[in-house]
Amino acid sequence: MDIGFIGLGRMGRHMAANLVKAGHRVRVWNRSPDAAKGIGGAEPVATAAEAFRGEAAITMLADDAALRAVIVEGGLLDAPERPGMHIGMSTISVGLAQDLAAIHGRAGVPYVSAPVFGPPKAAEAGALNVVAAGDAAAIAKAQPLFEAMGSKTWEFGPEPHRANAVKLAGNFMLLAAIEAMGEAKALVEGHGVDGNAALELYTSTLFACPVYKNYGGTIMSGRYEPPGFTVRLGAKDMRLALAAGESAGVPMPLGSVVRDSFIESISHGDGDKDIAAASLVAARRSGQT
Amino acid sequence: MDIGFIGLGRMGRHMAANLVKAGHRVRVWNRSPDAAKGIGGAEPVATAAEAFRGEAAITMLADDAALRAVIVEGGLLDAPERPGMHIGMSTISVGLAQDLAAIHGRAGVPYVSAPVFGPPKAAEAGALNVVAAGDAAAIAKAQPLFEAMGSKTWEFGPEPHRANAVKLAGNFMLLAAIEAMGEAKALVEGHGVDGNAALELYTSTLFACPVYKNYGGTIMSGRYEPPGFTVRLGAKDMRLALAAGESAGVPMPLGSVVRDSFIESISHGDGDKDIAAASLVAARRSGQT
Amino acid sequence: MDIGFIGLGRMGRHMAANLVKAGHRVRVWNRSPDAAKGIGGAEPVATAAEAFRGEAAITMLADDAALRAVIVEGGLLDAPERPGMHIGMSTISVGLAQDLAAIHGRAGVPYVSAPVFGPPKAAEAGALNVVAAGDAAAIAKAQPLFEAMGSKTWEFGPEPHRANAVKLAGNFMLLAAIEAMGEAKALVEGHGVDGNAALELYTSTLFACPVYKNYGGTIMSGRYEPPGFTVRLGAKDMRLALAAGESAGVPMPLGSVVRDSFIESISHGDGDKDIAAASLVAARRSGQT
Amino acid sequence: MDIGFIGLGRMGRHMAANLVKAGHRVRVWNRSPDAAKGIGGAEPVATAAEAFRGEAAITMLADDAALRAVIVEGGLLDAPERPGMHIGMSTISVGLAQDLAAIHGRAGVPYVSAPVFGPPKAAEAGALNVVAAGDAAAIAKAQPLFEAMGSKTWEFGPEPHRANAVKLAGNFMLLAAIEAMGEAKALVEGHGVDGNAALELYTSTLFACPVYKNYGGTIMSGRYEPPGFTVRLGAKDMRLALAAGESAGVPMPLGSVVRDSFIESISHGDGDKDIAAASLVAARRSGQT
Repeated sequence: MDIGFIGLGRMGRHMAANLVKAGHRVRVWNRSPDAAKGIGGAEPVATAAEAFRGEAAITMLADDAALRAVIVEGGLLDAPERPGMHIGMSTISVGLAQDLAAIHGRAGVPYVSAPVFGPPKAAEAGALNVVAAGDAAAIAKAQPLFEAMGSKTWEFGPEPHRANAVKLAGNFMLLAAIEAMGEAKALVEGHGVDGNAALELYTSTLFACPVYKNYGGTIMSGRYEPPGFTVRLGAKDMRLALAAGESAGVPMPLGSVVRDSFIESISHGDGDKDIAAASLVAARRSGQT
Repeated sequence: MDIGFIGLGRMGRHMAANLVKAGHRVRVWNRSPDAAKGIGGAEPVATAAEAFRGEAAITMLADDAALRAVIVEGGLLDAPERPGMHIGMSTISVGLAQDLAAIHGRAGVPYVSAPVFGPPKAAEAGALNVVAAGDAAAIAKAQPLFEAMGSKTWEFGPEPHRANAVKLAGNFMLLAAIEAMGEAKALVEGHGVDGNAALELYTSTLFACPVYKNYGGTIMSGRYEPPGFTVRLGAKDMRLALAAGESAGVPMPLGSVVRDSFIESISHGDGDKDIAAASLVAARRSGQT
Repeated sequence: MDIGFIGLGRMGRHMAANLVKAGHRVRVWNRSPDAAKGIGGAEPVATAAEAFRGEAAITMLADDAALRAVIVEGGLLDAPERPGMHIGMSTISVGLAQDLAAIHGRAGVPYVSAPVFGPPKAAEAGALNVVAAGDAAAIAKAQPLFEAMGSKTWEFGPEPHRANAVKLAGNFMLLAAIEAMGEAKALVEGHGVDGNAALELYTSTLFACPVYKNYGGTIMSGRYEPPGFTVRLGAKDMRLALAAGESAGVPMPLGSVVRDSFIESISHGDGDKDIAAASLVAARRSGQT
Repeated sequence: MDIGFIGLGRMGRHMAANLVKAGHRVRVWNRSPDAAKGIGGAEPVATAAEAFRGEAAITMLADDAALRAVIVEGGLLDAPERPGMHIGMSTISVGLAQDLAAIHGRAGVPYVSAPVFGPPKAAEAGALNVVAAGDAAAIAKAQPLFEAMGSKTWEFGPEPHRANAVKLAGNFMLLAAIEAMGEAKALVEGHGVDGNAALELYTSTLFACPVYKNYGGTIMSGRYEPPGFTVRLGAKDMRLALAAGESAGVPMPLGSVVRDSFIESISHGDGDKDIAAASLVAARRSGQT
């Protein structure tokens, strides 16, 4: 397929490369143009508009603001040449996804939300979990692209914003797991136990799954830099999840605790460390550090 | 070894049976005596005192009150004949474990705390995770018993109550996972998503581990009866974990949210259902049910 | 003074009327023009721009969106004729106040934030508490206006958004008091006590002050309609307070609980009732209703 | 009347003295006997049993443990000479009050719960608010005593523990007010506002009542020693309030936040300071201190 790919950060560059490998023609654009050069076989273009055309345009931008700036305020939906569909793969708010669905509807461009689960390594390996929602025919057409980037596509129906709700709820669960490990560690250490030994037990047995093993492993190592995903970005995702809850009338008290801990983590200088560093808040609250 | 086993509930009966299978001589006692009959090869005795002797006595009673009543108030530590060691495997408070360590010390009976992780099925299969703390020599002697009952022993040093802290912290993490799934499900359903489909995604990928798969599976099935472990018992364990936190100066705000949700679950009639039923609180708060 | 007054809702109409009574010339404008007619002695004008001029323009609009729409997007700061100062008296976000300070700075129009504490009755009586921040000279000039509308002016320095932080923090305290009364009532009723009798005790003694007496009185009456100030608006203010906390790195766990309760209240159909109705959440959580 | 008074701490000594002033004959006993000497006109007795007789015996002991030790474990209800009624004025748990009602019922001694609101100064001035529950005839007989000690008696029906629920709910509200002021102060200071100036505003207007003025005043002064009532005792009362909630099926999320903040305050060395010091937690969480 003839694809435009916008946003070549730590995830996007791998996703675009995998599309090239799968035989698609991929025009790539990034706000800072250097990022577009290193993707062998992809065709750097000079403007976002040149990427936002072809059979499908994929966006993998940092956040709501970036997506709004490039697509909406950039006027790409009013451009003479527009893509056969727009696949939004960024982690954005449910509210923006709803706005995009409406705007694209008026512009006659099918909009599919398809955020992903998985770290940069999974993006590199083409092993992401793709969470898709939107027009069924559009999703079907996009399936070869999803297969190039991910190991499995999970569909959640015709309204694009549903995929974003699923993504944000998953990230909330991940962040809550970090807080839980932090509190559990502080609890056992308060009773003289080596917290790492306890985490080793938990993450080898009841909680032997990627989220706990990965972030538990980071906690056990005590090395929070360089970050995989920062506390500050975790706080942003928690904010988006809580806003999605509020707009649907869903109180999320566990989410509120996570939010407060992440703010506290940032206020103590850990905003740019790995999200697992938010687990340190519990020890500080307990006067252990 | 010559062992006494006190407490033949849903876990204890399987643990005692596995000790018999491993070739140990096992005297068994239970408050309601019928439970003691069905364990082939074990020797029912008429009083707790007759079980509380031999090379080791194991207790697997329901809670603090039962253990206090049988052992402490029952005066077993003042009896003429006493066991070579007492292995307490119940999930009890850190405070009681500390009291028991002191009382046993005065009585000259080594006390080992060895609570376990695992459901009745794991007890039946001899596949529990044993969390042990206490005198190292006593733990070494007990190791053949732990091997008969569990697949792995995790040691946490000389102070028995440490094992209880580790057990309670693990149960807290488990209960927090149920609350997290409940809030995540309510969030996505508030946006029109089939919550079960989202849970299927989470528990197959990021959260593909026993706690999430088991309790997530129960939530997806919607069948909370018969219970594995009840909401009421979950509330009790959360109370013990929070008390352990308080005594060590550890605030546990995530734990506080879990506590409040479990109280709410009981107040709405779900106290005797499976702990996974506590996930229903989030939907009711959201006005979805 | 020659004043323009924009926003003639339940508070604004009284404030404008008091300015007239104090001898000022007051041009008034409201989005729905009928509201502008009933203020004797004031001069209705046809456009917001005609009100946004003179020695001072006062805005008392519903929320951030209304203020942004009328002033910023309405282009009033680029109009040829502009006021000697703009006094923003609405309860708005700290973020918008910061934006307004910057925008007015560029336009050369002094901006004073002056939100108020007090119900419509206090507005009618000219007995509001005015919370002012901004350029000291501008506040000094505005003082006769504040005296016409309020009983006391509280100054918080040169940065306008500080007044908004003080206002939002006060509203947070008010909302937390409602949640506290709700939980206290549920607690005592859970033990067979007449909750109203307990509230009567609290609000006559330890808590004999306007917030507790007014909202406690509403709770005791059980009449939540017509609302003074709605649960939905309370939820909005709580959202603004939490956002102000987040932007300053301040976790507000008590505020998070209030937020969750207000969402729950709205989800159970009480969004348009008096904020005191949020106290009902505690009873429902407890299975009492 | 002929009265025994047990417990002559900071509150009890004034209460006993006021009973003497009102013309009653008062036998006094305290665990450390020196305290009993300074109350002019009262008759120190050598044992608690000698105080626990006469027309009424009043207890004003520190906590559940002290009351259990002196009355229940001390066997005073089995003594040959017993009082016409027992008036328990300590702040104790709802659970102990229920136990005491049962035990006294079996012993044939009417039990009235009558905890009080008010600081030592109010005790000295005979201006306490007495919260009474129990047998109506017994309360009627006790009324002259209450009038000697307090300015008003608030009755809550025949079950003694109800008075304790009302007392604990009131203390919860007080503790929540401190947390609210702490968060509000941190919020405004995060935006450059002098927090004391904001507290001055709140406590002079919306919140001009004893709890906010007293504890707000302490916060403004920054002097948390000597303590009126310590953080540690506040934590204890919060624990009792939450336990009372749990036993009645009442989740108290605001109370849970208060609990966590008080634990955090103690863990940072403020346990023996005035409860208003718990407000410092919010600033530390925010990285302001």
